[in-house]
Amino acid sequence: MGQYIAPLRDMQFVLHELLQVEEELKAMPKHAETNRELIDQVLEEGGKFTSQILFPLNHSGDREGCHLDKVTHEVTPPKGFKAAYKQYVEAGWPSVSCDPEFGGQGLPLVVNNSFYEMMNSANQAWTMYPGLSHGAYECLHEHGTPEQKALYLPKLVSGEWTGTMCLTESHCGTDLGMLRSKAEPQADGSFKISGGKIFISAGEHDMSENIIHLVLARLPDAPAGTKGISLFVVPKFLPNADGSVGARNPIFCGAIEEKMGIHGNSTCQMNMDEATGWLIGQPNKGLNAMFVMMNAARLGVGMQSLGLTEVAFQNALVYAKDRLQMRSLTGVKAPEKAADPIIVHPDVRRMLLTAKAYAEGGRAFSSYVALQIDKELNHPDEDVRKEAADEVALLTPIIKSFLTDNGWIATSEALQVYGGHGFIAEWGMEQYVRDSRINMIYEGTNTIQSLDLLGRKVLMDNGAKLRKFGAKVQAFVEENGTDEAMAEFITPLADLGDKVTKLTMEIGMKAFQNPDEVGAAAVPYLRVVGHMVYAYFFARMAKIALEKQDGGDKFYQSKLGTARFYFARLLPETAMLIRQARSGSASLMALDADLF
Amino acid sequence: MGQYIAPLRDMQFVLHELLQVEEELKAMPKHAETNRELIDQVLEEGGKFTSQILFPLNHSGDREGCHLDKVTHEVTPPKGFKAAYKQYVEAGWPSVSCDPEFGGQGLPLVVNNSFYEMMNSANQAWTMYPGLSHGAYECLHEHGTPEQKALYLPKLVSGEWTGTMCLTESHCGTDLGMLRSKAEPQADGSFKISGGKIFISAGEHDMSENIIHLVLARLPDAPAGTKGISLFVVPKFLPNADGSVGARNPIFCGAIEEKMGIHGNSTCQMNMDEATGWLIGQPNKGLNAMFVMMNAARLGVGMQSLGLTEVAFQNALVYAKDRLQMRSLTGVKAPEKAADPIIVHPDVRRMLLTAKAYAEGGRAFSSYVALQIDKELNHPDEDVRKEAADEVALLTPIIKSFLTDNGWIATSEALQVYGGHGFIAEWGMEQYVRDSRINMIYEGTNTIQSLDLLGRKVLMDNGAKLRKFGAKVQAFVEENGTDEAMAEFITPLADLGDKVTKLTMEIGMKAFQNPDEVGAAAVPYLRVVGHMVYAYFFARMAKIALEKQDGGDKFYQSKLGTARFYFARLLPETAMLIRQARSGSASLMALDADLF
Repeated sequence: MGQYIAPLRDMQFVLHELLQVEEELKAMPKHAETNRELIDQVLEEGGKFTSQILFPLNHSGDREGCHLDKVTHEVTPPKGFKAAYKQYVEAGWPSVSCDPEFGGQGLPLVVNNSFYEMMNSANQAWTMYPGLSHGAYECLHEHGTPEQKALYLPKLVSGEWTGTMCLTESHCGTDLGMLRSKAEPQADGSFKISGGKIFISAGEHDMSENIIHLVLARLPDAPAGTKGISLFVVPKFLPNADGSVGARNPIFCGAIEEKMGIHGNSTCQMNMDEATGWLIGQPNKGLNAMFVMMNAARLGVGMQSLGLTEVAFQNALVYAKDRLQMRSLTGVKAPEKAADPIIVHPDVRRMLLTAKAYAEGGRAFSSYVALQIDKELNHPDEDVRKEAADEVALLTPIIKSFLTDNGWIATSEALQVYGGHGFIAEWGMEQYVRDSRINMIYEGTNTIQSLDLLGRKVLMDNGAKLRKFGAKVQAFVEENGTDEAMAEFITPLADLGDKVTKLTMEIGMKAFQNPDEVGAAAVPYLRVVGHMVYAYFFARMAKIALEKQDGGDKFYQSKLGTARFYFARLLPETAMLIRQARSGSASLMALDADLF
Repeated sequence: MGQYIAPLRDMQFVLHELLQVEEELKAMPKHAETNRELIDQVLEEGGKFTSQILFPLNHSGDREGCHLDKVTHEVTPPKGFKAAYKQYVEAGWPSVSCDPEFGGQGLPLVVNNSFYEMMNSANQAWTMYPGLSHGAYECLHEHGTPEQKALYLPKLVSGEWTGTMCLTESHCGTDLGMLRSKAEPQADGSFKISGGKIFISAGEHDMSENIIHLVLARLPDAPAGTKGISLFVVPKFLPNADGSVGARNPIFCGAIEEKMGIHGNSTCQMNMDEATGWLIGQPNKGLNAMFVMMNAARLGVGMQSLGLTEVAFQNALVYAKDRLQMRSLTGVKAPEKAADPIIVHPDVRRMLLTAKAYAEGGRAFSSYVALQIDKELNHPDEDVRKEAADEVALLTPIIKSFLTDNGWIATSEALQVYGGHGFIAEWGMEQYVRDSRINMIYEGTNTIQSLDLLGRKVLMDNGAKLRKFGAKVQAFVEENGTDEAMAEFITPLADLGDKVTKLTMEIGMKAFQNPDEVGAAAVPYLRVVGHMVYAYFFARMAKIALEKQDGGDKFYQSKLGTARFYFARLLPETAMLIRQARSGSASLMALDADLF
């Protein structure tokens, strides 16, 4: 059933050596006490919890799935899920990065993010239960009234209650402007909410005492489209003023979806029949309020695929060292054995290194973004906050899309290392592939992410945010431009930076005349920028590794080898992507729909 | 649950307009009578059978899977599979391209191949039961004694009996030289065979009266490695001389694998405990005999993914025309509806056209190869037979690997068109993705195919076979070099042809010094050559479409549009692949295994 060992060494490398988070956090009064020792302790404990408690439930959870009692509408998650959640709550994990005002530990997101990677490596389906909760926490924390905060946040922070996001309806997912669920105002200030929602992750289960649904619906007088959507909090059990749970609210699970993967998570159709809810934020401004949650969720989805990439890599590596098959083309390597371990074969190494490079690149990049969010939220200097916010806005769609596409590639390569055994459930690899597939879809499909990046974050902004990030890349290129040892990284990075600039301008010009040019270029464009970001971080990591490689710690040789592989084998994808992005809309739009 | 409609128009285009098979078959006495009318009739009937009988069992078969009775060792396939097989046999489908001497209809493979595409579109898991049979038929037809042929072939041709290939053991798949199953000679000329096999597709079921296992095992005095492997026929029931079935032979299914996909097919662990078998061909030459079967099977696996690509495309297209979501970026297209159908969006079109282009490219290419096999087997001119055989040898690993990689890409894109619904089982799209994943693995992983192409078929042959195929491409380029309307296709095709030549020479030189250079380059190299082949066929198809597009049949506009998309969006992958293939083995081999 495989293994999962938290990659503590690499996480520490990223946090302490690459990003120097201790230093960065010192500048934020809220996090000034978060030193390296504390961070490492959290990571170590997180590694134990995830590998010992969550990982053993991953495969069994996939095989068993969730069960709905059609009479009571109660959902039972797979065996062990509830007990693991109890341990999770008792250990205080839900509160790690939550506000101390509501019982949180107040640790920075950049630390919690690494823990979240571990949880997803160990068990994505399980992690979605508390993951969704955290989104509800953030949304209420930002937009709730003081009373709502006082009522809900302590319970969400402690983990006694969990949360969900109820957005999608059967006829609308991407296009939320079409949604139909209705909210009727009541005399007491509450609302009666009716309608049907689908694809509600962790929508119903018995792991927590109460489930706090955040629901999008329309007020009676609401304008059509996205400007007429409001956000409501609709608890499964109506809370009493003292925080105890009261009457059952008529928001029921009508069915559980049968899915390709994440079987351990209950993906529910939710029916509301005059369920009681309360408005969050302003009327008709529900999408704005929801965006807080969605941006956090997009980072979270990237972390899901990063987790899967890491665990798939680890297992494929163990298999590749163990499995004996054929001899090396350059001569026998293990004469004492009936055949050589398959890690001697160049193409097996290509598969392994693809997963390894995507794991390490994704870890560096996503930790960087998490740190920027900490700055955005907690840095005392407004300019720093603003700059961090701009970067987070620019990079969030890349996190969501690039990490999840890469997770699909990496888990599939890791499966392939196993040959026929990769296709067999008991080895566990095929589950990683199946689980990873949803990450390219939910929280905004990867196409939507690419339109968000190219259309909204780059072109509507006249490229300002991209130029700011590009200036960081450029500064690194200039700092290291005369270092011969760095040339193998700096030259292609500088070249790609120039190409991104030219490509952006070219598409911008074309889009001015034909908006379909944005839609035609967006997906390859996002991957080009994603590779520029990874190339930048791999170059920075290589610089550290070059400086430290002679110190005896083989970790740095490994890091250098991965960086070199990345530049040799993965970065060349940009040669394809740039051609695709430049090829324009003509070949896509020429045919009438009936000629397809 | 979706739809499947056999793509008769495109099949007819490929067979009659592109390949002109009627003309080609006239040159082969065995097939001289196979005219267009007959071919179209077979295709039409095939379309009805596959869409009406097989397709309705595809999703239910996936959900139900196969069941093993652990006491009797009998396996029950999903509901309806047995009845469909009865109809298949009664309609005479098993015999289409079999030898008339044994009851076959003697039709060319190029016709049967199109039918096989349809079967796989409709139901890959079901199709593997008769598919494996056909492999056993071909192996016995080529290597059996006259008595073996007389006993087994009529039953396999009629479909009363089915067959399997028993190669893999738990410790060896790719590396068959390590296999351990043993065959003890008996006084009566038979053998007692013992051992365990895994991953035996269609290994046990109740659909046919008898199952004829072709089993690889070692004779007592056999040399080690691949030179000590012999092939045996091991029937489930020992046949009586009159063709009736006799005693149960101790070759039993011990377990059914739980797999990622193809759930409707019984993937069995087979245990042999002194099962009675008979040698096929020469002692210790079993792998040679098996290769007949494996080459046919490799073409067959390519057709599996082609079938999945087609059906996934068809369904995604229906959905994209039906699903309303957002407005076109260039203005409202369906003002009478709440939103535009998603086929207005450029990136949805990119996904659809990717699947469409891979389906049409794969259909042209695989039909061409099937016709070459007909020539190899039945052309009266020995030189033509030899040339066809060389082409088949060169192109078979490309069929297997390029079509199955593309099937994975295409089915995943088709799933993505559905958004969240693509992940839900009832829509059927996720099954196509799961089913397609095995095709990149079995019958020799795609890595093994790429080594076969680059190592054995190209370099060991000093590039002769590749040059011969390249000369055809070159001739087409020269014929059309002055046709301005063709320039958009001819220019990139000619350019890629040159690049393939240079790339091959470069790798050849490097491989001379370091054999790992072959393993490092093989996978991207195969895809480069695959794209050259597709570009050649798309250019040829575009030429026909350009000539006929003004005749009023919109099919030709569609074909031209697909060809233009292929050149604009898919062919640019070669820019990446060539860089990867040229990047060499250094970045793969640098790290010690313990530094991964």
